Amino acid sequence: MSNRIGKDIIDLLLRPSTATLTSVMRELGVTNIFMHRVEPLRSGMKMAGPAFTLRYIPARQDLDTSVIDNLRDVQRIGIEEIAPGQVLVIDARGDTRAGTMGAILATRIYRRGAVGVVTDGAFRDSPVIAEIGLPAYAVAMNANTNKTIHHPSEIQVPIACGGVAVIPNDIIVGDGEGVVVVPASMAEKVAEMAIAMEEKEDFLLEKIRAGESIVGVYPPDEKIIGEYEEWKIKKARACEH
Amino acid sequence: MSNRIGKDIIDLLLRPSTATLTSVMRELGVTNIFMHRVEPLRSGMKMAGPAFTLRYIPARQDLDTSVIDNLRDVQRIGIEEIAPGQVLVIDARGDTRAGTMGAILATRIYRRGAVGVVTDGAFRDSPVIAEIGLPAYAVAMNANTNKTIHHPSEIQVPIACGGVAVIPNDIIVGDGEGVVVVPASMAEKVAEMAIAMEEKEDFLLEKIRAGESIVGVYPPDEKIIGEYEEWKIKKARACEH
Amino acid sequence: MSNRIGKDIIDLLLRPSTATLTSVMRELGVTNIFMHRVEPLRSGMKMAGPAFTLRYIPARQDLDTSVIDNLRDVQRIGIEEIAPGQVLVIDARGDTRAGTMGAILATRIYRRGAVGVVTDGAFRDSPVIAEIGLPAYAVAMNANTNKTIHHPSEIQVPIACGGVAVIPNDIIVGDGEGVVVVPASMAEKVAEMAIAMEEKEDFLLEKIRAGESIVGVYPPDEKIIGEYEEWKIKKARACEH
Amino acid sequence: MSNRIGKDIIDLLLRPSTATLTSVMRELGVTNIFMHRVEPLRSGMKMAGPAFTLRYIPARQDLDTSVIDNLRDVQRIGIEEIAPGQVLVIDARGDTRAGTMGAILATRIYRRGAVGVVTDGAFRDSPVIAEIGLPAYAVAMNANTNKTIHHPSEIQVPIACGGVAVIPNDIIVGDGEGVVVVPASMAEKVAEMAIAMEEKEDFLLEKIRAGESIVGVYPPDEKIIGEYEEWKIKKARACEH
Amino acid sequence: MSNRIGKDIIDLLLRPSTATLTSVMRELGVTNIFMHRVEPLRSGMKMAGPAFTLRYIPARQDLDTSVIDNLRDVQRIGIEEIAPGQVLVIDARGDTRAGTMGAILATRIYRRGAVGVVTDGAFRDSPVIAEIGLPAYAVAMNANTNKTIHHPSEIQVPIACGGVAVIPNDIIVGDGEGVVVVPASMAEKVAEMAIAMEEKEDFLLEKIRAGESIVGVYPPDEKIIGEYEEWKIKKARACEH
Amino acid sequence: MSNRIGKDIIDLLLRPSTATLTSVMRELGVTNIFMHRVEPLRSGMKMAGPAFTLRYIPARQDLDTSVIDNLRDVQRIGIEEIAPGQVLVIDARGDTRAGTMGAILATRIYRRGAVGVVTDGAFRDSPVIAEIGLPAYAVAMNANTNKTIHHPSEIQVPIACGGVAVIPNDIIVGDGEGVVVVPASMAEKVAEMAIAMEEKEDFLLEKIRAGESIVGVYPPDEKIIGEYEEWKIKKARACEH
Repeated sequence: MSNRIGKDIIDLLLRPSTATLTSVMRELGVTNIFMHRVEPLRSGMKMAGPAFTLRYIPARQDLDTSVIDNLRDVQRIGIEEIAPGQVLVIDARGDTRAGTMGAILATRIYRRGAVGVVTDGAFRDSPVIAEIGLPAYAVAMNANTNKTIHHPSEIQVPIACGGVAVIPNDIIVGDGEGVVVVPASMAEKVAEMAIAMEEKEDFLLEKIRAGESIVGVYPPDEKIIGEYEEWKIKKARACEH
Repeated sequence: MSNRIGKDIIDLLLRPSTATLTSVMRELGVTNIFMHRVEPLRSGMKMAGPAFTLRYIPARQDLDTSVIDNLRDVQRIGIEEIAPGQVLVIDARGDTRAGTMGAILATRIYRRGAVGVVTDGAFRDSPVIAEIGLPAYAVAMNANTNKTIHHPSEIQVPIACGGVAVIPNDIIVGDGEGVVVVPASMAEKVAEMAIAMEEKEDFLLEKIRAGESIVGVYPPDEKIIGEYEEWKIKKARACEH
Repeated sequence: MSNRIGKDIIDLLLRPSTATLTSVMRELGVTNIFMHRVEPLRSGMKMAGPAFTLRYIPARQDLDTSVIDNLRDVQRIGIEEIAPGQVLVIDARGDTRAGTMGAILATRIYRRGAVGVVTDGAFRDSPVIAEIGLPAYAVAMNANTNKTIHHPSEIQVPIACGGVAVIPNDIIVGDGEGVVVVPASMAEKVAEMAIAMEEKEDFLLEKIRAGESIVGVYPPDEKIIGEYEEWKIKKARACEH
Repeated sequence: MSNRIGKDIIDLLLRPSTATLTSVMRELGVTNIFMHRVEPLRSGMKMAGPAFTLRYIPARQDLDTSVIDNLRDVQRIGIEEIAPGQVLVIDARGDTRAGTMGAILATRIYRRGAVGVVTDGAFRDSPVIAEIGLPAYAVAMNANTNKTIHHPSEIQVPIACGGVAVIPNDIIVGDGEGVVVVPASMAEKVAEMAIAMEEKEDFLLEKIRAGESIVGVYPPDEKIIGEYEEWKIKKARACEH
Repeated sequence: MSNRIGKDIIDLLLRPSTATLTSVMRELGVTNIFMHRVEPLRSGMKMAGPAFTLRYIPARQDLDTSVIDNLRDVQRIGIEEIAPGQVLVIDARGDTRAGTMGAILATRIYRRGAVGVVTDGAFRDSPVIAEIGLPAYAVAMNANTNKTIHHPSEIQVPIACGGVAVIPNDIIVGDGEGVVVVPASMAEKVAEMAIAMEEKEDFLLEKIRAGESIVGVYPPDEKIIGEYEEWKIKKARACEH
Repeated sequence: MSNRIGKDIIDLLLRPSTATLTSVMRELGVTNIFMHRVEPLRSGMKMAGPAFTLRYIPARQDLDTSVIDNLRDVQRIGIEEIAPGQVLVIDARGDTRAGTMGAILATRIYRRGAVGVVTDGAFRDSPVIAEIGLPAYAVAMNANTNKTIHHPSEIQVPIACGGVAVIPNDIIVGDGEGVVVVPASMAEKVAEMAIAMEEKEDFLLEKIRAGESIVGVYPPDEKIIGEYEEWKIKKARACEH
């Protein structure tokens, strides 16, 4: 499929912060892409991969049976369809009154090669999920099983998560601050621009750390841009050796 | 399709209040079916019909084009597909920062024979919509066009609205209190039970109005049930003449 | 009981607006007494009477039985204990996902002589309740029966309603703006001061309506106070004839 | 001052709905201008005029004295500075736990020629304010005096109201749906475009009312645009006679 | 009193996670028992014990005196009545604008043998409380004293906390995810079932960790159940030696 | 300027907890001074300094240009005006949908000698800001740039932050629990009283830790006060040697 993003682009997207990615996309005219209220389950997280989406609707007693059938339950089907490198993104309508997934299913997708899981609801078994090794992002922790509040409705359709649209195969990037959605069609351009911006901002941050005023430096005037261009050349040469 | 509910059942569902329908469904074990925060745009409303669903996701600049194409825009396609007798139900994720529909589209579905429109977002042109003759229910009024906040994603899929699940062809019933969802598979049973309950409660309310205690009357003891049975027989006979 | 307030005081409390009562109590050092988010079910309402309190806690399946027993259910016991002139005040924890009372019970307390009903939750059968003749105040309308969300726990204990404390026998006053709690111990003083303030503000409002500046008038300087004192004397004389 | 908008422009802005104004400004690239959650105190309201702003901060006991001094209290100073034709817009930080203004002050600004009052907090004496004749918009009603929660801080500075920016002299337009801010610099252009759009949409709405599909009509294709142009010419000729 | 739960049962309840307890109670038909928004003050917490309840209502100036009297203040009386092994659960109506308890009182109940403290409000001195050794759960931290917002009203009555009902002597269990209420009448059954479920899920989780699909394993089919039964027998035998 | 507080007072204010400061100010009649929902970005924070305020209003496309001009942008001007020892306090209207400041600007104010930064919105680059060494307090983390949601409007005016008023030069004190505002006019008195209270409470806490009842101890009766006075004298003597 044409909107599958290559591993090389995804690797690039892992390097800049979500803040830099958000800035770059704003320059490209797209602003509503950082998930609101969705936080990392533990610090030091970093993830990037195409979205595999799961959509919940509110639970209703006539829709849910108490016995879970892995071959009919949409959540369970999704778990066994998720592919290596993907990030599971779950639309829980911002409702945190139940978990959207527990430790066993989170372990399963980790074993299938998923590189992250994100929801605008809650996880259950959160302390266990935090130890799996799978980057996980949610609004809250809640021990209730998903069926208490949620009914799995569809997989791999466009969803809402944390107030932003997520289309299957959009690249989902997470760090210690939260989660940003990079539309698939923009991924390559965004990766390129973000790495350039991150490098430049690292250079500027050094100047600020050294005590310079933001005036002339951030944003940089022509003199500072000149210095930066030289610094880049030097750095490139240094790398050559 | 087998879950299409007949006009006769829908006519029956128009008679009891949403409170009675909610009580009957609770007796049948289904409780999460009254929409939260969704209110009638004007008083005196009454509606019933199968749900035609529309799902919005959050707007994103790369998904929306400024020119509206009636043949590609999912909302517009839905407007021209809605059938006589149906109720349009719009999942706006509870977000009232923009309207979900304005007066021209509301007029169009009214002309197509729709019998109501419901959203857990807002309407725009609300004062005009209130005068069309189409029962309309929403959480708020908001003059922003839908594209400011919402992107039409799917029609005729299961949705969330006012915190409850709505499956296409579920019967959507509204009165002056709000909106209740009657699952299609339960509609006939619910209609029957609700009419019986409403009749009985009307009888009991007369007793309470006349000054009787609730003890023995609400819920009725055997004596009052006996009186009610007699009253029903008399009423039936009276109708025969 | 000593904190029962006389009918004469209650009649006086019916005259000033809730805004004036709130101002007077602020002067007496009590500020947290106007209920937040609690609105009249219909316009033109006016009520005053001692509080009869009912406290709900969240529903739990092991606490509630489906059959309602008027002799054991705390809500039902309260309904048949409420006395003429009282206002039923229901602590619903601000949760509007179910009604706290429907038309039959509201009719019953009206027949028992209750002069109002207030909740920081919702009513069900709201359109019917609005027509009973009983002033009714709530945060929302919701057709779900109370047992869906609420469990009746206690009657005639101190409660919270709309973010304010309500002690049994506090005087509950409502008008078109909302509901204020007058602590029983302050009722006489408040009534007296409020009637005086209302009379003075009516006099001042006339001046403002006539085009005078607020400077010197609101608050009144000595000259205006003099005019007001004269006006009161004239009015008193006029009434004597 | 150059950004004072002429009476003629303001009169034009009174004609289109807030929905049309919002659409026009969206075409001009400005989207965050319709106030969220701010509703008319009564139906049938219509207002337009330049903003006179008042900003509250949270009350703090050391900032407020119990005696109100019309010559020092910023709110009171504002009341006596507001000019004919202006709309008073009050930033209450969305906090509805107290009123921002009562009937006497509302009457005073009405007498001074103000054409409306708007807040993202509450009014007190709301039932009285609703009868003054002054269009009034708020999030809620609350009988507490402003000083319970709010401290008047500044007048005629940029503020937030209902989630949107209001700069003094921006044109504030209200109708039955709510309140929209027209930036002063855009007012003339917006008025012109809105009247044109409203006229066209009235024409299209007639077509939809007559039973036509939205396809080809809304948005109009070349044929319908042609019909509209002819219709406008006929109408213009008719007016000449 | 018959609903006092034995130490042996409480010890069993300490072993499973709150997620497992929640699942077991759902199987028994009780779903609304996990506290919403209530989080551990620090990680690694684990607690279980019968509830000792304290209920706050909103503060009102005429109810509170500035001097605290340990013999009349309901909170203070409760502090000195709490028994070894109990968990103090405080109904703060979800209001986090003040603490419900500070470090000195938390230290006192710890010294009295309390095994935990839970509120749906806030604590003050939270950093100090976190170091006492007493498991503590709250919605937020807030340095205001309780009397700023809360008035202690009752002890040892049914309360709401985190949206769930808590009856005195219900067993309150907390872990790193949050707090669950085990109704006293169900405690023994729940303990038994939860330990069995936890053991089985540990077995299944090992399978998933080892790379097996959830199909056939979670929920387990007959083959896996057989393996599990054998594993249990082996484990039992191993323990015998 | 007379309301500049000396370094010695500020050093004293660093010693007591925010809980003690809040208690002391309550004794002095000022209660609304602890910021609601504003939390430390990392644990172990402690800060005190005069407020330098920055006020945002909602972003509007006609107000913001994409190019940032350090000499005209109010936020940027503030960054270069903040003085050593000050705490930057940012009014973000509680809106966390964008950051209010990122790592480069936070580093700049750190280099200028600022001793803290506080907002009732979010930071971006939060993980980096947490490592700067600058105490930072916010409601959330959000990678969006401030201009997505906020427009810098004023510096050094009274603002709202976390629901409390902040006047420039008020002393802002933060610890692991959150942030309290000490009005400049009260700072000396508050510092003195807080240090005395903290010392006394440390003494009392030792008693409670040792197993004494709160009765007689907290609040202390005459006997305990006597013990405390002796203890203070001994401690003072010990320090003399």
